Amino acid sequence: MSDDECVFCAIVRGDAESSVVHDDAEVLAFMDLQPVTPGHLLVVPKTHAVGLEDLDVEDGQKVWAVGHRLSRVLRRSGLRCDGINLFLADGRAASQEVFHVHLHVFPRFAGDTFRISADWRERERSELDETAAVLRKTLAALTAGAPARPQQTS
Amino acid sequence: MSDDECVFCAIVRGDAESSVVHDDAEVLAFMDLQPVTPGHLLVVPKTHAVGLEDLDVEDGQKVWAVGHRLSRVLRRSGLRCDGINLFLADGRAASQEVFHVHLHVFPRFAGDTFRISADWRERERSELDETAAVLRKTLAALTAGAPARPQQTS
Repeated sequence: MSDDECVFCAIVRGDAESSVVHDDAEVLAFMDLQPVTPGHLLVVPKTHAVGLEDLDVEDGQKVWAVGHRLSRVLRRSGLRCDGINLFLADGRAASQEVFHVHLHVFPRFAGDTFRISADWRERERSELDETAAVLRKTLAALTAGAPARPQQTS
Repeated sequence: MSDDECVFCAIVRGDAESSVVHDDAEVLAFMDLQPVTPGHLLVVPKTHAVGLEDLDVEDGQKVWAVGHRLSRVLRRSGLRCDGINLFLADGRAASQEVFHVHLHVFPRFAGDTFRISADWRERERSELDETAAVLRKTLAALTAGAPARPQQTS
């Protein structure tokens, strides 16, 4: 349930300082210590899960629902908020830094400092269709109960 | 249910080309035409919603659950995937470009081109506590049924 080494578990237990906005039986939401913009929230399941692999499906849906509701709260709060980003980093390669799954919910406005960048070239339909076919096959195998473990690509 | 001007509604109706990975009564997932990395998926509710404000709560949870499942698919697919990001842009100020709510799910690996940046200075606890108090008050008002409409800050 709780991981002794995990700072978010310590927050859930009340053993570490936090500024809490939402608290129910399964989900806690509190202010990010290093906010992208004022109002930046983290939504976490109270039961320790490292990431999307070990996160219970229903716990995930509860985290999402709280994040969704808090996005509506941010827009009504009077804080500067002309848009909202939700962001989740799963794994070190995806910039996860605290290994207790957490959904970022933060306000956006013109002139804020948040930026994303990538090589967003449009791809050929044939390439997308090939990738989709691979994923459909994997989804079917997962639904059928195999393979049980993720592959490592590096 | 469907918006005639919306490209994602056209995809849902089958009137526009897409590379589909998941299709159920409420949710469709297909390849992003401009992937951050190979395997980049978009998960959308079939019922048109512009963003988090008009998205039905249960539809949102269904979108999340499909995104969660597809994150597991990506890790098992053989595509390069050492991490996963989930990303949602709600509103033009948050970089939303297609105004039918969509959850991005994409693989990450060392050397990919995706980057995020922001001014991530650590803030004082007193400042975070003040913001949390504002949000708790707004959440309580929203739960009590008011105020009904989001504020505009610009």
